[in-house]
Amino acid sequence: MTTRDSDEQIAQNLKHGSVATLTHWLNTRGYRNAFIGGLLSVNPGIRMAGPARTIRFVPARPDLAEMWPDRETNPHRKCVEHIGAGEVLVVDAGGNAEGGVFGDIMTARLRGRNAAGLVVDGSLRDIWQIRQIDLAVYAKHTNAAAIQRAVVAVEMDGIITCGGVAVRPGDWIAGDPDGVVVIPAVHVAEAAAYAAEHEDLEIFLREQVLAGASLADAYPPNDTIKALYTAQTGRPAH
Amino acid sequence: MTTRDSDEQIAQNLKHGSVATLTHWLNTRGYRNAFIGGLLSVNPGIRMAGPARTIRFVPARPDLAEMWPDRETNPHRKCVEHIGAGEVLVVDAGGNAEGGVFGDIMTARLRGRNAAGLVVDGSLRDIWQIRQIDLAVYAKHTNAAAIQRAVVAVEMDGIITCGGVAVRPGDWIAGDPDGVVVIPAVHVAEAAAYAAEHEDLEIFLREQVLAGASLADAYPPNDTIKALYTAQTGRPAH
Amino acid sequence: MTTRDSDEQIAQNLKHGSVATLTHWLNTRGYRNAFIGGLLSVNPGIRMAGPARTIRFVPARPDLAEMWPDRETNPHRKCVEHIGAGEVLVVDAGGNAEGGVFGDIMTARLRGRNAAGLVVDGSLRDIWQIRQIDLAVYAKHTNAAAIQRAVVAVEMDGIITCGGVAVRPGDWIAGDPDGVVVIPAVHVAEAAAYAAEHEDLEIFLREQVLAGASLADAYPPNDTIKALYTAQTGRPAH
Amino acid sequence: MTTRDSDEQIAQNLKHGSVATLTHWLNTRGYRNAFIGGLLSVNPGIRMAGPARTIRFVPARPDLAEMWPDRETNPHRKCVEHIGAGEVLVVDAGGNAEGGVFGDIMTARLRGRNAAGLVVDGSLRDIWQIRQIDLAVYAKHTNAAAIQRAVVAVEMDGIITCGGVAVRPGDWIAGDPDGVVVIPAVHVAEAAAYAAEHEDLEIFLREQVLAGASLADAYPPNDTIKALYTAQTGRPAH
Amino acid sequence: MTTRDSDEQIAQNLKHGSVATLTHWLNTRGYRNAFIGGLLSVNPGIRMAGPARTIRFVPARPDLAEMWPDRETNPHRKCVEHIGAGEVLVVDAGGNAEGGVFGDIMTARLRGRNAAGLVVDGSLRDIWQIRQIDLAVYAKHTNAAAIQRAVVAVEMDGIITCGGVAVRPGDWIAGDPDGVVVIPAVHVAEAAAYAAEHEDLEIFLREQVLAGASLADAYPPNDTIKALYTAQTGRPAH
Amino acid sequence: MTTRDSDEQIAQNLKHGSVATLTHWLNTRGYRNAFIGGLLSVNPGIRMAGPARTIRFVPARPDLAEMWPDRETNPHRKCVEHIGAGEVLVVDAGGNAEGGVFGDIMTARLRGRNAAGLVVDGSLRDIWQIRQIDLAVYAKHTNAAAIQRAVVAVEMDGIITCGGVAVRPGDWIAGDPDGVVVIPAVHVAEAAAYAAEHEDLEIFLREQVLAGASLADAYPPNDTIKALYTAQTGRPAH
Repeated sequence: MTTRDSDEQIAQNLKHGSVATLTHWLNTRGYRNAFIGGLLSVNPGIRMAGPARTIRFVPARPDLAEMWPDRETNPHRKCVEHIGAGEVLVVDAGGNAEGGVFGDIMTARLRGRNAAGLVVDGSLRDIWQIRQIDLAVYAKHTNAAAIQRAVVAVEMDGIITCGGVAVRPGDWIAGDPDGVVVIPAVHVAEAAAYAAEHEDLEIFLREQVLAGASLADAYPPNDTIKALYTAQTGRPAH
Repeated sequence: MTTRDSDEQIAQNLKHGSVATLTHWLNTRGYRNAFIGGLLSVNPGIRMAGPARTIRFVPARPDLAEMWPDRETNPHRKCVEHIGAGEVLVVDAGGNAEGGVFGDIMTARLRGRNAAGLVVDGSLRDIWQIRQIDLAVYAKHTNAAAIQRAVVAVEMDGIITCGGVAVRPGDWIAGDPDGVVVIPAVHVAEAAAYAAEHEDLEIFLREQVLAGASLADAYPPNDTIKALYTAQTGRPAH
Repeated sequence: MTTRDSDEQIAQNLKHGSVATLTHWLNTRGYRNAFIGGLLSVNPGIRMAGPARTIRFVPARPDLAEMWPDRETNPHRKCVEHIGAGEVLVVDAGGNAEGGVFGDIMTARLRGRNAAGLVVDGSLRDIWQIRQIDLAVYAKHTNAAAIQRAVVAVEMDGIITCGGVAVRPGDWIAGDPDGVVVIPAVHVAEAAAYAAEHEDLEIFLREQVLAGASLADAYPPNDTIKALYTAQTGRPAH
Repeated sequence: MTTRDSDEQIAQNLKHGSVATLTHWLNTRGYRNAFIGGLLSVNPGIRMAGPARTIRFVPARPDLAEMWPDRETNPHRKCVEHIGAGEVLVVDAGGNAEGGVFGDIMTARLRGRNAAGLVVDGSLRDIWQIRQIDLAVYAKHTNAAAIQRAVVAVEMDGIITCGGVAVRPGDWIAGDPDGVVVIPAVHVAEAAAYAAEHEDLEIFLREQVLAGASLADAYPPNDTIKALYTAQTGRPAH
Repeated sequence: MTTRDSDEQIAQNLKHGSVATLTHWLNTRGYRNAFIGGLLSVNPGIRMAGPARTIRFVPARPDLAEMWPDRETNPHRKCVEHIGAGEVLVVDAGGNAEGGVFGDIMTARLRGRNAAGLVVDGSLRDIWQIRQIDLAVYAKHTNAAAIQRAVVAVEMDGIITCGGVAVRPGDWIAGDPDGVVVIPAVHVAEAAAYAAEHEDLEIFLREQVLAGASLADAYPPNDTIKALYTAQTGRPAH
Repeated sequence: MTTRDSDEQIAQNLKHGSVATLTHWLNTRGYRNAFIGGLLSVNPGIRMAGPARTIRFVPARPDLAEMWPDRETNPHRKCVEHIGAGEVLVVDAGGNAEGGVFGDIMTARLRGRNAAGLVVDGSLRDIWQIRQIDLAVYAKHTNAAAIQRAVVAVEMDGIITCGGVAVRPGDWIAGDPDGVVVIPAVHVAEAAAYAAEHEDLEIFLREQVLAGASLADAYPPNDTIKALYTAQTGRPAH
């Protein structure tokens, strides 16, 4: 199996599992602060999973705005043009609510390059047009003002903070309606496999409980319910 | 008429009336602080009404986590297993945003026991799975982290605070898209009957106003409009 | 062309353009603080544009409540009864979250008088009934409590603050899912024409980018893409 | 006794009484929302009492900045130049934290005109120089930026909101280290007399309690302690 | 040594050590959430240490206000009258900012009964008079309004939340200018002894560093500096 | 004049001028966002001025904590050990309120190396010991918990955000009781000279106004007052 195949399997497992299970798994490994909450999910129907690329913005000031007179070297445009297929762009804009860091065309370009998602600790503009782009997009705020008055890009592919969580380039990022979770690359294959398998069990147990099973019997499952799960799925319940 | 019948009538009236009318009615009786706002309504299509059961959580600490080594005496699980049909579980988690107090399986068990709803002054996890459960659910936040790092249950069936409002076990709780209102049991029959009847008048008046009636004529209604209402419904307008 | 025709053309252009483009245009004219964010859009499918009428509320106190014993002179009711067709009512309630400044019947009356919209820096009640009224409505909060315990109207048609932005009567107000923008009357015809035309170009560029064009080619557009736009639309790309 | 004498007596009583007692007295008359909290007291050693003059600011925008090209008609400067001896200037800047509404020279001019105080629902600059001016000054924030980027004056001597409390010109304003209270003019003589007299009793009771009296005996005082108070002061305890 | 002697030694050690050292020590034992921050220290010159008594308030409502018609059974008054010498009263008022839970006379009574301190997750009134009482007092807010409109006592000597930290009756509470720390009784003797001894070393190391020692040499101390400390104090440096 | 002399002159001018004047001067050059507000000034009697060194922290996570196993290469310790005499350390901890980034010994080492100050967008611990160190120190919060649970250093001498303001290494930083201002190096000599000179005029004008001069005469000064200033100081008033 090639690495690319493996990445596809990881992404598939992350999308099948839930952010809640992944966050809990990470907590048991000492990663207590891996979940980014309080985000608007712009396109909640699209599940997101992929390795992180990062970019960091700081509050706008005139001399920083002039650091990259050539458009193509500006980190903001560069990070979009260099995103790889299947990658998630994670944006540290310090939670800025004063101007949209990404609008519809920059977001469309991420889609054009087959990125897997966009997570912005800051604001979006053109939210209604972004709703029409087939990309998982999360952000803290909506602000129709253009970026110039708010923040300026200073660095791509560095360690950043996003929504109170540290993100390293190469971390895996998964998103569902609960929010977004950050998974160190060294742990992602195991976490993803666990989450995907655990999800099937959760769905099974939820059905049992909706049908009348008590918590004492089903959560965690007793031997009877475990056996039932194995009988149905051919897999152990753990 | 048995008490049980009466409770069904009350619940039906509360669901037909609006939280806005109930909140206003309570204010005229001196209950100035009865509305819980700022809540996410997870399943907004489902109206909620029922008597309150309560549970209180405090921030997590190791010795409190060990107070109930036996799962079945843990108040968190116990309150779910002892909820009665038609009751609403009201959760004081102090507005905690650090971990989900209820996930999909605990919520499913409330549905399995025919509870009428769940109101959490704290966080939910598995929000997307909870959307698929046929239960009225309200909460302050979403956080995919598990409860262990956030809060621990200390007491069930006590007086609590939920979203800045005092709740006594046995209070009636009603919810609609505006939010949730807390109604002392001694007042609920009268409040519910008023709200249900007032709703019909409100609908009628809104139609009059949309059709061109002025506030001076319709809000409150003049004699002509009152007569029209009575003619249509056979009931007085008050 | 009559002024009325012109106003219709402005409103049509504002609805075709985006709040993001209008906000950016105003920023280039020195209006750095024209966007009202953080609003709930109650009826997001309805675009809003029209000249502002204003009303200002202050926190409730007994003697102010008695200033207008006659209902018809109360500025709250008066501003609703005197709204003109196509106007937007902008409400300064100081961001109050303690009681609903507008409920369903007052809102229905705005619709009955053919107003173009309602923007409330404060709370709404009866939100679910307001969802059924064919009017663009924006607000900061939802609170089912009646207005009496929260705020009282003191002045109509004055200069106000709404969501951190100054609003003068006669300013034009436009709203889309990003939020609301305030446009001085002297600039509105030019801003609206620009925004409407720019929107067509934006849609065209977004399609180019989704189809694979790079930012270097399409944002801003190079001569090839400009020529393509002109060929398709018969209009210059600027 | 002339009115002026009476105003001096009121101010003296307000300064001798406490803001806590005045706030409680007003609450018993239905004024539930009279206390302005969360204020920085710049010169906490100076007690403040006097009738209110008001001024209202809105967020800055270019056309409003040009409304008063002549400095002397600008409401900001005008309200300072027209303040009367013994009056308190109450400023509605909407809680703005972006720029200082009052700096040291404008504040010095209030002192030069023998004003009784300054209460700003917004920001001060030059706070260290203001500490050297012999005037009671309260504000929400400190921000060294000049006012131009933040807010602009639009109206003096109107009804305003300050710190979530309505203020009418002519209301009396009192301040101590707890914060500031707003007293309608019609009630101020009675409230002030009560507060001044009650303060003496409070001091007496506090001493009793510090010396060992129980709450049951001293709060409220029993007949023995009441008699002791009367014996010491020649006044009844009520 | 009697228990009472031991409690005095613990209190003395806690007052000599720092809240920072105690918080760090607890963290190493798994108590990650023991520090209560964001508090106003009313009398910062007084160090606080003692076992906790607790009381819990919920938001005011008319029927709860009538639960204890007899003043002496009201938990608010009762907890003050039953505080023991050397104990700290810890108040869960849910962070309420709407009315003062403790004023000068209730606080004076705590002093009269030789309590060791008062910590209020809510508001104080009469702050300037409380400054004159010889008692360590911490609170979240100042609000001159009386308690009646804000909160009502429901339970004494239960487990509570204070400033986001769980507190059990009998926990030890220590306070210094950094804030307040909550120490489970089972750990307090060891924590206090460590903190007191560590403080002496910290003072010594700080002096070394101010005199020019590098972090590499002094923090943690190398053998030379350790020896110097031992030479001066006769105690090991650890 | 050597560069070193020049730096001393700049620092002296910055300390004589006010942060308010510097902030206003920068605004006229297009630096609209140069003031860092909302800071606790730990040692308000000490004026601060010097060129910035920077360090950036992100939220703690286990793998980042292990990036610098050797203490001396850890950026946190390294930035302290490499601070130059007269420099100000500016810390981007993302406003973290969960643990103290600097305590007394690290702060003492800055003093030991003759740094000019410390500005922390995060928390301090050991605040009472820091009050005894002769160094200008500003921070957002106080939290007695140790840094390990809160943040981890990732980079020194990069561009950072501090309190919503961008800071480049080499910017000059000035602080007074209003707060802290960030001045690009290219502008600092001119800004400092202006602020120092303007301060003398401000003091003179304030005295005039306290003595009874009107705003029309003194703010800005008329020819008479200008002449008086020049007569007293031998310098022009501008």
